[in-house]
Amino acid sequence: MKLVIAIVQKEDSNKLQHAFIKANIRATKLATTGGFLSEGNTTFLIGTPDDQVEQVLDVIKSKSEAREEYVQPNLIPNGMDISIPVKVTVGGATCFVVNVDEFKRF
Amino acid sequence: MKLVIAIVQKEDSNKLQHAFIKANIRATKLATTGGFLSEGNTTFLIGTPDDQVEQVLDVIKSKSEAREEYVQPNLIPNGMDISIPVKVTVGGATCFVVNVDEFKRF
Amino acid sequence: MKLVIAIVQKEDSNKLQHAFIKANIRATKLATTGGFLSEGNTTFLIGTPDDQVEQVLDVIKSKSEAREEYVQPNLIPNGMDISIPVKVTVGGATCFVVNVDEFKRF
Ligand code: NI
Ligand code: NI
Ligand code: NI
Repeated sequence: MKLVIAIVQKEDSNKLQHAFIKANIRATKLATTGGFLSEGNTTFLIGTPDDQVEQVLDVIKSKSEAREEYVQPNLIPNGMDISIPVKVTVGGATCFVVNVDEFKRF
Repeated sequence: MKLVIAIVQKEDSNKLQHAFIKANIRATKLATTGGFLSEGNTTFLIGTPDDQVEQVLDVIKSKSEAREEYVQPNLIPNGMDISIPVKVTVGGATCFVVNVDEFKRF
Repeated sequence: MKLVIAIVQKEDSNKLQHAFIKANIRATKLATTGGFLSEGNTTFLIGTPDDQVEQVLDVIKSKSEAREEYVQPNLIPNGMDISIPVKVTVGGATCFVVNVDEFKRF
């Protein structure tokens, strides 16, 4: 039995949670930081048999890998409407896999 | 030395915290999710000697095991007062026990 | 590879985060509890090579060790201005070091 501790960006957490459910992976979603800050992240704890760790990591990667996106900066503080899309990096996941001595659900 | 990572429902976290204190178990309470959502949970981290893991799990089970309760749905959105109690499952705990290489308090 | 799980007081978390950056230690800051409660804490997860664990713990200790401070209780509920400083214990860190089987960044 292994415990996967995965930290993903807040914007990816809902779709990752749905992907876990679809893949029949039981994940516990912990608190999300920073309600209004862009740097918010969400932690998932996933207990999994040893031979399913790679599958869990694949699901995490598929939904939260860092990627570049073009953002239309419509609303900017000084009121100007700049129509040139800006490239930003979004997403990204940090995953720790640790051995579990004992796992209990009550 | 072991680390017990326990995720319990928010409604059980206070009484569990008190039970830890009463049992002389040093537990660190982490953030609680979802201020107004029913799915809120609380994470506890408990460092414990190997031979006290079962005692820690017993305390967690005693205060946060999943159980059925009857709820009187007095307040429902459309204003009707339904007087028939509804059975719901509350509580529940997920516990991971991992080995600790080193434990420090500063 | 080791995972250091460090729980520090909220008031120390920003300066610790900056110290991690300065020491080139990649730390993930998890949610902070208790927005207005003094008991708020912050959890950091730090993945580190085995031979750098002590350095990570040193950084944590340097910024968040429990210490006594004198606080001027200017504002107290009943409106009195007591000018005698009060000694309080602030800070403090709890650190768990666990072995990491696998570490992934996506
Ligand atoms: Ni959903
Ligand atoms: Ni209390
Ligand atoms: Ni800063």
